[in-house]
Amino acid sequence: MKRTLHADHRNKGRLDRPDPYPVHRIKRVDQPTTRVNEDQIQRVDERDGGFHQAGIGNFGPRLKQEYKRFVPKHPLSGALVAMGGNLGHLVEGPTKTTDASGTPWGVSSWKPLASVAPAKAPLPEDPVDLARHIKEVAYFLRADMVGICKLPPYSVFTHSKADGSPVTLAHKYAIGILIDQDWRTAAAFSGRDWISNAMSFMAYTASGFIACALADYIRRLGYPARAHFAMNYQVVVPPILLWAGLGEISRIGDVVLNPFLGPRFKAAVVTTDLPLAVDKPIDFGLQDFCDKCQKCARECPANAISDGPKEMYNGYEKWPTNAKRCTAMRVGNQHGSGCGTCIKVCPWNKPYTPFHRAINWSMRKIPFLRRFGVWGDDLLGYGKADYDQKWWLDLEEVDGVLQVPITIKKKAEAIDPATQLEMDE
Amino acid sequence: MKRTLHADHRNKGRLDRPDPYPVHRIKRVDQPTTRVNEDQIQRVDERDGGFHQAGIGNFGPRLKQEYKRFVPKHPLSGALVAMGGNLGHLVEGPTKTTDASGTPWGVSSWKPLASVAPAKAPLPEDPVDLARHIKEVAYFLRADMVGICKLPPYSVFTHSKADGSPVTLAHKYAIGILIDQDWRTAAAFSGRDWISNAMSFMAYTASGFIACALADYIRRLGYPARAHFAMNYQVVVPPILLWAGLGEISRIGDVVLNPFLGPRFKAAVVTTDLPLAVDKPIDFGLQDFCDKCQKCARECPANAISDGPKEMYNGYEKWPTNAKRCTAMRVGNQHGSGCGTCIKVCPWNKPYTPFHRAINWSMRKIPFLRRFGVWGDDLLGYGKADYDQKWWLDLEEVDGVLQVPITIKKKAEAIDPATQLEMDE
Repeated sequence: MKRTLHADHRNKGRLDRPDPYPVHRIKRVDQPTTRVNEDQIQRVDERDGGFHQAGIGNFGPRLKQEYKRFVPKHPLSGALVAMGGNLGHLVEGPTKTTDASGTPWGVSSWKPLASVAPAKAPLPEDPVDLARHIKEVAYFLRADMVGICKLPPYSVFTHSKADGSPVTLAHKYAIGILIDQDWRTAAAFSGRDWISNAMSFMAYTASGFIACALADYIRRLGYPARAHFAMNYQVVVPPILLWAGLGEISRIGDVVLNPFLGPRFKAAVVTTDLPLAVDKPIDFGLQDFCDKCQKCARECPANAISDGPKEMYNGYEKWPTNAKRCTAMRVGNQHGSGCGTCIKVCPWNKPYTPFHRAINWSMRKIPFLRRFGVWGDDLLGYGKADYDQKWWLDLEEVDGVLQVPITIKKKAEAIDPATQLEMDE
Repeated sequence: MKRTLHADHRNKGRLDRPDPYPVHRIKRVDQPTTRVNEDQIQRVDERDGGFHQAGIGNFGPRLKQEYKRFVPKHPLSGALVAMGGNLGHLVEGPTKTTDASGTPWGVSSWKPLASVAPAKAPLPEDPVDLARHIKEVAYFLRADMVGICKLPPYSVFTHSKADGSPVTLAHKYAIGILIDQDWRTAAAFSGRDWISNAMSFMAYTASGFIACALADYIRRLGYPARAHFAMNYQVVVPPILLWAGLGEISRIGDVVLNPFLGPRFKAAVVTTDLPLAVDKPIDFGLQDFCDKCQKCARECPANAISDGPKEMYNGYEKWPTNAKRCTAMRVGNQHGSGCGTCIKVCPWNKPYTPFHRAINWSMRKIPFLRRFGVWGDDLLGYGKADYDQKWWLDLEEVDGVLQVPITIKKKAEAIDPATQLEMDE
């Protein structure tokens, strides 16, 4: 769908709101639609994350090995993770003091703000005006959706996976920035072939790019700010998206699902003390929808998604997922690079066309139509690969050389993640 | 307007073309619509550029001083030029070998390709398929428009401004990548107030980001590739845009004007030896239009644009411009950061709405309507600032502290670039 749809609004000069998508039409609620017992939530250690666990060998020797190559084994996700690694150095301020040419153009002409500007800039005093301004800046920087909340203290990691050092982050606010993973590619791919990681890392790096520039802008205004994205986090993102009104908890588990992008996005965050008016959580009927749909549970190749009811976990009411099986599929996938099958098959993964906007409205507003909607989604073949639209190349790096993926050469059958997982144990 | 309009097409699954804008509807020609005597064109020394000349003091002491601050004196253009300076290190391959966290995630898991992959990847053999693929990749990376041409040898700088060293670049092809400077901001600003440089550097860095990732991707495929953008060029961009069918020479002078974005874009380039089918130059009637319009010449605050006929210059037929006056205005502007008044007032600077698409078609197709179109453009007030849509903050850094710009405090009258220029001499 239109990635920067706000441009429409901007064209029409709709000054009442900066947002590309009609987020103002989504019902706002004081509390998330899933229970969040904030007093019970324990902060998370970044080292407990599935990918890190795979990387250090806790999911078996094969995944430990695969972890080193599962992203760059395809050249496009490789180029994007390389770019992301570079941006990962900028989250707390540009570390470069010269550009490549060494000339004043972009060198002595700018003062890298690795720290906060010494004096606060003269700014609007109303946090509502400041929040509106920050969103306008993020959209100017080509964000797809932006939301703001207070930074939940429990969303801050206890320890960094980098060196195991304790994380302290006392910022007051969090700005969530969403980037679409690209509808056309999502329509073409199977959910787990060779472009899957590239979709993730395109959105990770594009949102990280915006977060790093926005954080630097805020530091120049005289307020502390730090960017957080895939290559360098100090926070857990889902609770921030939840409180910033960017989505509801979904059956996919830790995925906060957006009413217009579905699960087809990645998010970056900027934390800051700049005084900002915050958004409220949203309710677009997803809890009832996910109860009825279960497509992601049905289609997950790793059987990592539950078709049962929600449970309480670390203070959150959520559908349980098997992080180990999910990670094993994404890291160990021999038939592609990564896996986003849940994103692919989710009925909310749609373009933003008039037809789909109408369906989207009815799914949000008319509960009894939801089962019919899911049935129709299957009937119309959504969730199936459409290789007529395939534009990427199936390539796999083996021993530093790109080749037609072994599993394609072999015409291997569909992967059996169960077997694979046992293999990994 | 819609920055990534290709998303529309991608939604509709138009497989006949990857492009967001209907560039296939624009008339293609074998030669550019302005004479290019390739045998007479002398390569340019990067050090002769206006900005560099201002920076080394050849335009007077005030501009030499202002040059150090004219971009970062506003915090948003400052944050963007800082980001650009960082990307400037990546044009020939990521130089980082670790991400900020130091973990395998994006570190040992990717091999930074500062050089070309040792072996060529198995690729489609038809250069038409490869060109289509490269455009799809650039659009996936959120480019707004892409065109391909053979790299004109005369577009390569003779010497780098970095250290005065000779430039040698023997790549066969050039990929031009356009990023919109944002219609809503272009509609709001006067052309020369405090957001002007931020518009330039948003588009410079966003296109540079895409060019760096695309070049890395191509190197991983086993072919040499280098990114070129504002913070690190080895080529002069306009002739590349001209031959890649991304625009025609315009009265604005060195600006190659695009039929859908007008002059409201910045471009990055990737040069490579990957065998690509090339695009042809375009003819949308701009030579006749610019003959009749002259709005940019009328409105330029520096009187740097000619209202006269085209002349031959270094083998190019073009409207003459006064680079010194233009540079003096952009670097020395005391009432804002930079200047894009010619972009602001150009009748081709429009959103991509149905109404404007219809006008756009008639201006391209019906010569006798052009004078009427220009008259109507004035009548409807296009080219005037619309501060109801203003979203940015007027801020100016003075001695490391952001303040309300001096000239706004003083309620100074409109700048007199003539006086200013004399002041600079």
